[in-house]
Amino acid sequence: MAQQTCNDTKQRILQAAIFLFNSKGFTGTSVREIANKANVNIAHISYYFKGKGGLLEYLVSTYYEGYIKVIEENYSELHQSNAHTVLSNIILDILNYQHENRQLSRLVYREVTLDSILIREVMTTYLTKEKYFIKSLFEQGIKEGYYRKGFVPHLIIQLRSLLHMPYLQPQYMSEVLHIQPHEAYFVHQYYKELKYWLHSLLADKKLENKQLIMFP
Amino acid sequence: MAQQTCNDTKQRILQAAIFLFNSKGFTGTSVREIANKANVNIAHISYYFKGKGGLLEYLVSTYYEGYIKVIEENYSELHQSNAHTVLSNIILDILNYQHENRQLSRLVYREVTLDSILIREVMTTYLTKEKYFIKSLFEQGIKEGYYRKGFVPHLIIQLRSLLHMPYLQPQYMSEVLHIQPHEAYFVHQYYKELKYWLHSLLADKKLENKQLIMFP
Repeated sequence: MAQQTCNDTKQRILQAAIFLFNSKGFTGTSVREIANKANVNIAHISYYFKGKGGLLEYLVSTYYEGYIKVIEENYSELHQSNAHTVLSNIILDILNYQHENRQLSRLVYREVTLDSILIREVMTTYLTKEKYFIKSLFEQGIKEGYYRKGFVPHLIIQLRSLLHMPYLQPQYMSEVLHIQPHEAYFVHQYYKELKYWLHSLLADKKLENKQLIMFP
Repeated sequence: MAQQTCNDTKQRILQAAIFLFNSKGFTGTSVREIANKANVNIAHISYYFKGKGGLLEYLVSTYYEGYIKVIEENYSELHQSNAHTVLSNIILDILNYQHENRQLSRLVYREVTLDSILIREVMTTYLTKEKYFIKSLFEQGIKEGYYRKGFVPHLIIQLRSLLHMPYLQPQYMSEVLHIQPHEAYFVHQYYKELKYWLHSLLADKKLENKQLIMFP
């Protein structure tokens, strides 16, 4: 029972922090505001997270732990599959992961554009791991003659841009494009578009054979 | 002479603000810090920009004025060209515009992920205009049977993601991918990749004929 109450307090703090960091920015939010919004005593935030910085660190790390797990799990299927299938599955699973963690995705992708000690650590751990897996998959696809020869780091930028951007800019999506990325059909529809992108990486000689298989 | 001094002061304030907003965030930067960094009297910032908010507004508006001008100029060539060529030219010119305004691009693309009155205004003016032009071009390409039938708003998200992301995340680019987007060859190399993306939009029946023309 005590455990449950503790988790509940932690969760309330986390949800309040995500909401406030997204609407007022990290520097624009005070610990007191988080405590008020979460309806907890301000001391709880120090106790669980050692303050505002620790709270952000917890949120960013938790997000990327889950993100890397999605990639790793798919990558481990490579021996009984192929790079192209694994990449397709990663795209779908990351879209779903972002969909399930929409508010946090937005916060994390926004924070990661900053130049801070926390973000440098994120880069040397999670984002380097992410690069390792994605790079291996592209390289394997190219080696097998499946993908056209491309400059792999540029393929990585493109994949990440296409995956992350809709979740970084939800207002642009809804107010300018009139798309609702929080609705379930978005993932399905957008995934189909990203398959076209992946398709554009296929080497010319594979193109004719694969076209019908990929887009039946 | 007085005019020159005035422009010089304004420019110094703008450069200082871009630097500080990028490194410490908008809310994390004070007007006094901007004045110190620019080596001007703090009263100049009120005089020219009516404070920190006005400074940000000036930077964001100036950026998008130039951005929309790039698109408009290319769009006006449509009557003597075609949608695909105009889109290719827009991609190259926007990449160059971003390259010339790297620090400001980063600041603007970061700010635009926030939910503020300024950003809502930017959306109803500049970003709605941007959508109008890009949408017309995709729709014309689809109407002419040149592009495959796709959901146009999703094509717009993809184009914007691919164009903006490298400039939003310069540290990720240099520290994880070891790419230097500030170097001149980056635009050239990345443009080639984005042409592949545009190529992936071509309708299947156009594919074989166009392939050699587009990628000689």
